[in-house]
Amino acid sequence: MLEPTINAQRLLDDLEALAQFTEPDTPGWTRRFPSDAYRRARQWLRARMETAGLATQLDNAGNLFGRRDGAANMPPIHAGSHTDTVMGGGRYDGTLGVLGALEAARAIADAGIRLRHPLVVADHLSEEATDYAIACLGSLAMCTGHFRPEWLARQVNGVTLRQAMLDMGAHPEELGQPLVKPGEIAAFLELHIEQGPVLEARGATLAAVSGIVGIRRALVELAGKANHAGATPMDLRHDALAAAARIIVAVEEIARAHPGAVGAVGKLDLRPNQGNVIPAQVTLMAEMRSLDMAALDAMWADLLQLAQEASAARGVTLHFHNETRLDSVTPPRWLHELVLAVCRRHDPKALAIPSGAGHDASHLALVTPAAMIFVPSVGGRSHAPEEYTDPADLARGVHALADAIVAIDRA
Amino acid sequence: MLEPTINAQRLLDDLEALAQFTEPDTPGWTRRFPSDAYRRARQWLRARMETAGLATQLDNAGNLFGRRDGAANMPPIHAGSHTDTVMGGGRYDGTLGVLGALEAARAIADAGIRLRHPLVVADHLSEEATDYAIACLGSLAMCTGHFRPEWLARQVNGVTLRQAMLDMGAHPEELGQPLVKPGEIAAFLELHIEQGPVLEARGATLAAVSGIVGIRRALVELAGKANHAGATPMDLRHDALAAAARIIVAVEEIARAHPGAVGAVGKLDLRPNQGNVIPAQVTLMAEMRSLDMAALDAMWADLLQLAQEASAARGVTLHFHNETRLDSVTPPRWLHELVLAVCRRHDPKALAIPSGAGHDASHLALVTPAAMIFVPSVGGRSHAPEEYTDPADLARGVHALADAIVAIDRA
Repeated sequence: MLEPTINAQRLLDDLEALAQFTEPDTPGWTRRFPSDAYRRARQWLRARMETAGLATQLDNAGNLFGRRDGAANMPPIHAGSHTDTVMGGGRYDGTLGVLGALEAARAIADAGIRLRHPLVVADHLSEEATDYAIACLGSLAMCTGHFRPEWLARQVNGVTLRQAMLDMGAHPEELGQPLVKPGEIAAFLELHIEQGPVLEARGATLAAVSGIVGIRRALVELAGKANHAGATPMDLRHDALAAAARIIVAVEEIARAHPGAVGAVGKLDLRPNQGNVIPAQVTLMAEMRSLDMAALDAMWADLLQLAQEASAARGVTLHFHNETRLDSVTPPRWLHELVLAVCRRHDPKALAIPSGAGHDASHLALVTPAAMIFVPSVGGRSHAPEEYTDPADLARGVHALADAIVAIDRA
Repeated sequence: MLEPTINAQRLLDDLEALAQFTEPDTPGWTRRFPSDAYRRARQWLRARMETAGLATQLDNAGNLFGRRDGAANMPPIHAGSHTDTVMGGGRYDGTLGVLGALEAARAIADAGIRLRHPLVVADHLSEEATDYAIACLGSLAMCTGHFRPEWLARQVNGVTLRQAMLDMGAHPEELGQPLVKPGEIAAFLELHIEQGPVLEARGATLAAVSGIVGIRRALVELAGKANHAGATPMDLRHDALAAAARIIVAVEEIARAHPGAVGAVGKLDLRPNQGNVIPAQVTLMAEMRSLDMAALDAMWADLLQLAQEASAARGVTLHFHNETRLDSVTPPRWLHELVLAVCRRHDPKALAIPSGAGHDASHLALVTPAAMIFVPSVGGRSHAPEEYTDPADLARGVHALADAIVAIDRA
C-alpha cells in the first residue's frame, strides 16, 4: 500500500517563509487580525496552495481553503489550523497545522495516492483572542450559530469588526448561521504544538488529543473614582484596581481549587494609571478553562459572586462584557482510536492527553468528527518568541497527520 | 493697622488664564513635567510676576521665584506651591498656592503695606510624581541633600531627567547639596486645596495643617514567564500579574489595618498584556502614607515581606526600584498657632487637620519654619477634572494667606 512521503525540508522552508510576515515594531512573531502582515501572509499561503495544485477559495467567514478533488463523490476531509498569532508569539502555534496539512497534501500526491475524499487544507480566520474579545472567529462563524451580527459594531483602535473582516476577505453581513451542515465534512484533523510541558516531561513526541477544555472568558469593567491617593481616607475611596486585584487573586484561587482547571487574567488596562491617583477604571480579561463544563460553570459563578462582593465593598461598579462560553469537546471514539494508533506507529510512547488550550477543532467538532495531534513544545513555552519544536518532531507530526488522513480516507 | 485687600476677580482671572495651558489630547487639565504646556505656563507666570513688580529668577533646581524686597535686612518669607498637574488633573491643586501667593503679594502692596522681610512667590518644579519616580523634584533638590546625580540618567519616553530639567531651565549638574541653608528663609507658607473630604464634611472653610504625612513609595518590578494561558498547568506557571495582585491586595489590607494611614497602587503596566497569555512582566508603583513614621516603616516592611512571599511562591522575580522615603513633618508650634489664629479670624469653625498628601512644604520644612492652609475640595475630589473649590473659599484662603504673611512679618 502506498505511503505518504514527507519532504521535511519543504515543510521547514514553508515555516520559515511564513515567519517572515510579522508586524514591524512588535516583539517575536506577530500577525494579529487584521494587520497587513497577517493579510500578506495569507496571500503568500494562497499562492503556495495553488502551486501545490490546490483550488483556493475564501468562505464568508474569511476562512481560506485549498482543495484537491477526490476520486469518489464523498464529502471532503479537512485538515488545518490558523496563521494568526498572539502579540509577540512564536513560529509554530497554528502555522504548523496549516503548513503541515499543506505538506501532507503534497506528500500524499507525491506518493501517487489518490484519495477517495476531497482533501481541504484549511486556514481559519483569527483563532487567537483579539481585543474584539472573540477567539476562533473564523471557525466559530463557520461551524456555529453563535456569531452575533451586533459584534460587527465592536471597535478596536477605531476599526469595527465589520471593517476588519471585510479587509480580510470575509462577507460578515452573511454570517449568523453555520456555513456547513453536519455530514458536509467527513472529518477534521488539526496538527498543533502542545503549548504545554507534558509531552516533554513524559519523553513522548506525539499525542492524540483526548479532548479540548471548555473556556469561559469575559471582559470585566470596574469603575471607581479618581482621587488623590494620599488625601482620601481608606474608607472613602473607590479604588477600581484594589477591586480588580481581588478578582485576579480569585481567578487563581478558584482555578487552583479545581484539579486540571486553569485560570488567568492576561490583559489589564487602568486609568488614569498614575502613581499618585486612585485608579478610576480598570478593564481586564478573565478566563477559566476545564474539560468538566459543570465544574467550569460553578467556577465562573464563584468568580462572579466574588467580583460582585469585591466591587460592592469598595463602591466600585462592575460589568461583565463580551462573555464567551465554549463547551469542552472530545473526538468520537473511532476517530480518537484511529489517530492514536497512527501516532503509536510513529512513536510507541505516544500519549493520549487533553488540550488545555482552545483550538479551531473545538468548533469544527460541532459539524464533523474532529481530532487533534500534538507534537512537543520545548519547555512548554508558547505564545512567546521562545516557542520551539525540534524539526524532527515537526516532520514526525506531519507524517502522522498525513497517515491519519489516508487512514480516514480508507476507513 | 493696614490690612491686605484681596482682589478676588484678579485671582480668578489668573487661575482661569493658567488653566488654558494644558497638553493637547489629554483629559481634564494636564501640565506634566517636562511638557510644552508646563513650560509655556511658567513663561506666562513669570511675566505675570514681573507685571506685579516682582523680580524673577530660576534657581539651579528649576524653581521659579518672584521677589519683592523688604524694608529691613531680613531673610525672605516664601509663599507658593507648584503649577504642574497630574495627567488629567484639575485647576486648583498647586496653582492656588502659587497664584494665591501672587495675589497676596499684590494685595499687600495695594494696601500700602511695606513688609520688613522680602516676600518671595515660589513656583516649585514638578511637584507631582512623574514616571521618573520622583515627586517634589524642585523643592527636594532645593531643600535636601537627597537629590542623587545618578537620577539624571533615568529615562521616560527616551528623555533623560537631565535633559528634561535642562529644558525647564534648571542646572541639574549643580545639584546634590541643598541650595538654601537654615536661616536663609524666614518662613514658608503654602495655601492648598484639601484634596480630601474632611473640611466639607465638618462644614469648615479653612484649616491650619497640623502635619504632612510621610510617604514610602517604590516601583515594583515582577518578572515571570509568558506562556499559553490554557495549556500551562497552574503549578507550572510563573504569572507576574497574579503575584502583583497579591501585592495590591496587601497594600490595601496593610493600610486599612493602621488607622489614619493610606496606601494604593495607582500605576501598573503589564506585558505582553494579552488575554490568552500568562503575564510575563508587571511594573507597578506602590505607595503608603502615615504621620507616624515608625508605623509607616513597619507597614513597608510588611509589604516587602509579603511581596517576596507572593513572588517566590510563583517563581516570579521581584525588584523594588526608585524607592522614596519622605519623613512626615509638622510645623513649629508658634507658626501653627499663628496660622490657626489667622484662619479662625476668617472662619470661627476653622480646623487643625493633617494633610494626607505630600507637598513642597514637606521639603521646605527642612530649611525653614513651614506651614500650610487648606481650603475645601468639593466632594473631596482632586487629581481629577472634577476638582472644584467655591470661589468664595478660594478668596478666603488667599486672604488668610496674606494675613499670615503680614503676621509673620510683624512677629
